[in-house]
Amino acid sequence: MRIGVDAMGGDNAPAEVVAGVLKARDALGGDLQLVLIGRAEAIEPHLPGDEAGRAGITVVDCPDVVAMDDAPVEALRNMPDSSIARLAQMHKRGEVDAIVSAGNTGAYVAACQMYLRRLAGVHRPGIAIVVPAFHGSVTLCDVGANVNCRPQHLLQYGIMAGIYAQRVAGVKVPRVGLLSIGSEDGKGNELVKKTRELLKEQPALEFIGNVEGRDLFGNVCDVVVCEGFVGNVCLKLM
Amino acid sequence: MRIGVDAMGGDNAPAEVVAGVLKARDALGGDLQLVLIGRAEAIEPHLPGDEAGRAGITVVDCPDVVAMDDAPVEALRNMPDSSIARLAQMHKRGEVDAIVSAGNTGAYVAACQMYLRRLAGVHRPGIAIVVPAFHGSVTLCDVGANVNCRPQHLLQYGIMAGIYAQRVAGVKVPRVGLLSIGSEDGKGNELVKKTRELLKEQPALEFIGNVEGRDLFGNVCDVVVCEGFVGNVCLKLM
Repeated sequence: MRIGVDAMGGDNAPAEVVAGVLKARDALGGDLQLVLIGRAEAIEPHLPGDEAGRAGITVVDCPDVVAMDDAPVEALRNMPDSSIARLAQMHKRGEVDAIVSAGNTGAYVAACQMYLRRLAGVHRPGIAIVVPAFHGSVTLCDVGANVNCRPQHLLQYGIMAGIYAQRVAGVKVPRVGLLSIGSEDGKGNELVKKTRELLKEQPALEFIGNVEGRDLFGNVCDVVVCEGFVGNVCLKLM
Repeated sequence: MRIGVDAMGGDNAPAEVVAGVLKARDALGGDLQLVLIGRAEAIEPHLPGDEAGRAGITVVDCPDVVAMDDAPVEALRNMPDSSIARLAQMHKRGEVDAIVSAGNTGAYVAACQMYLRRLAGVHRPGIAIVVPAFHGSVTLCDVGANVNCRPQHLLQYGIMAGIYAQRVAGVKVPRVGLLSIGSEDGKGNELVKKTRELLKEQPALEFIGNVEGRDLFGNVCDVVVCEGFVGNVCLKLM
């Protein structure tokens, strides 16, 4: 498997990213190939000098870097040779099997939309995270791709995160909860109230109703659906 | 000082509420008078039988109870003799100096609006909590009174919570942060972006800009302003 890694994204990049890639190579081993994408002259000093030390790691040089405070879409238009854009382009061409970035979230989401497109029928991308809880894990979606959600978007997050929990976290029948401010049906804002009606009508989903902030760790559900704004606040609060 | 307490609100009421009132009386002592408001026949069995055991505590009988899943405004209209409504009425008449309820939040907010009215110029009520952080405390407002905020409401929460932090938490010049999904100016939803402009223009406020979920514990600000939906999720997640 080949994994493309944005060497220029996140705090203290590229030093910390390269350190992490070396650790991943040593920990996972096997036929894993790690591709560091970014400014070669910035990456090289952090790699071992000998051939054995670089085993399994290659560097793809690209000149541009999207900063954390760059406007996502403009940054991608102006910098098609940025490490974030290159990640998505390489994935599109099948040169890597998966891509990783700790950089500008909005630019990463926009690059994936631009080069990889969405799955057929899916209206908006969502970012799912797997929260380690006391009883196992909870898949939370969305944590920041979409801060202007419609009910249909949240419904699709529930379906996609449910499949993820099933296939990746190994939950046979994922219980799906909708993040709100009270477990009772009448609680929540308009988005939550309309989404609840859509989730209820989905026979494929084991929808358990509203959940609250505390339920993320309470073993009441395996998937939590929310809008990107509140999801991102939760992620960073945790 | 006389404090009115809703004996019928919260988990395991009235038993736990009465137990808490007895503890408060013993811990705080002095001339504190605690007034338990609710169904006398449900409250009495949890009080000590002797006069000394009841010192400082009185019971005000009222027949109705607002349930946790009752619609707030309808509940108040249909039950003007509920313990929640009675709390606000007694405060209005000056029979108590402060009121406490762990019951239906929406009904409590609505009762305060109906009987106590808002401060002059204030558009919406907000619920502030004081979060114990490692460095001191952070006042977070709103945590659930208002899930359909306008920028002007959030601005007023910043001003009111700032005064609260100053007078009650003892912070000389409270640093006010706006809860968002990134510290950069461009991050956030429309409500956050518009609120930021209003907060910036307030000379009376020490506005430090956007803060993230992690900053609640990071000693970067003393007050965090947010909409009631995300604030309530944070409260329960914490």
